[in-house]
Amino acid sequence: MVRFFVTPEDLESDSPVLSGENARHARVLRLKEQEQLLLCDGQGQECLCQVAQASPDITLTVLERRPSSTEAAVDVRVYMAFPKADKLEHVIQKATELGAYEILAFPSSRCVSRPDEKSLKKKLERWQKIAASAAEQSGRGRIPQVRVLGSFADALTHAAQADRALLFYENEEAFTLKMALAGSYRTVSLMVGPEGGLSESEVQQARAAGMQVCTLGRRILRCETAPLCALSAVMYDAGEL
Amino acid sequence: MVRFFVTPEDLESDSPVLSGENARHARVLRLKEQEQLLLCDGQGQECLCQVAQASPDITLTVLERRPSSTEAAVDVRVYMAFPKADKLEHVIQKATELGAYEILAFPSSRCVSRPDEKSLKKKLERWQKIAASAAEQSGRGRIPQVRVLGSFADALTHAAQADRALLFYENEEAFTLKMALAGSYRTVSLMVGPEGGLSESEVQQARAAGMQVCTLGRRILRCETAPLCALSAVMYDAGEL
Repeated sequence: MVRFFVTPEDLESDSPVLSGENARHARVLRLKEQEQLLLCDGQGQECLCQVAQASPDITLTVLERRPSSTEAAVDVRVYMAFPKADKLEHVIQKATELGAYEILAFPSSRCVSRPDEKSLKKKLERWQKIAASAAEQSGRGRIPQVRVLGSFADALTHAAQADRALLFYENEEAFTLKMALAGSYRTVSLMVGPEGGLSESEVQQARAAGMQVCTLGRRILRCETAPLCALSAVMYDAGEL
Repeated sequence: MVRFFVTPEDLESDSPVLSGENARHARVLRLKEQEQLLLCDGQGQECLCQVAQASPDITLTVLERRPSSTEAAVDVRVYMAFPKADKLEHVIQKATELGAYEILAFPSSRCVSRPDEKSLKKKLERWQKIAASAAEQSGRGRIPQVRVLGSFADALTHAAQADRALLFYENEEAFTLKMALAGSYRTVSLMVGPEGGLSESEVQQARAAGMQVCTLGRRILRCETAPLCALSAVMYDAGEL
């Protein structure tokens, strides 16, 4: 079924009308009267509608309001130290497809690139668009927020609040993801360092903040592969796959 | 520890000598006498060595021959219908990092691009190089082979031989990866279609050949995301993460 992202206000309306980009898209699709479609507010709520009138305006009748059926029951946030080049964009796109709740980028001591204040606003807009587009393509009811945290300490404070707060570190060999996920959980933080890894003292700082330090197995994963591998495994463990 | 890929014959030698690209690399690293390093044959065997003499030639003393400690106990092969553009290269790199045993590409009815005979040899060389480089970077002891199969029927015949032979299909809703992986297994085939998906009749053909048709959850994954998500989940299920 075709899906349109609208504002939460539009979703509340008793007789929604498709406008702007959505109206153009609906005309391209040649939506007909009686046809069903989904409106999503990008925050996990959706509304099953039927086309009441197809022209000049596309007006809809509400059939059912409900929580989005494609969102994961588990809330997994990806925390990633700023990587080089366009790797963050790759992670945003893929983590969105895989069902991440939010993607948060932060600086760490060995980050080679880190956007300056001036370019950050523009980059955030671009990153949010990538998330929106991946959410639409993968049929999600929620567009994950992309956020930037000001420091490694900030990232730890946020990440440590989850039921399972995990940091993946290439020098950890014994404590596995499977051990870390034992028992039940509803929220998970997955944190990875940049290309050059986190420093020993950053890892200590993370432990002190309450993060569990885990291995992702005997092969060394690139910084952009690690969070997507871990996210896939968590979704599997949580019964989403 | 630094690792060098050598031929199986070089690995058998009682006093191996680093040559060619490996010798150049060792000089850049300024390897000293007594230093330890690993030789890998790219087929799962490795040899712990010590530098006996650092110049003019770099000769080694063998300390221990052993199976590679970074290879997965489970043998997972990724079967992918030819995707557009450089997506196959992406999957080869990432699947190698994630521990795949082999990556096999095949044509299917909705493949938009499919290399012709003439360009195939060159492409296979390039793909094999990508696998070798990712194997080295991730510390693997085995370089996964990249193979091209001539037809969808060929791919099914190969894939169906595994203990778990799984085809991911967006119209399957009930049978999950977790259900498919119940019980013990040593070999797994993970098959995905191209951007436009497999046709209904191809899916029937796959069932008839013995493939299990699975969902990868309620979100629709791109054709290059699906095999990497499934591979991560299988590695997790098999106790590798």
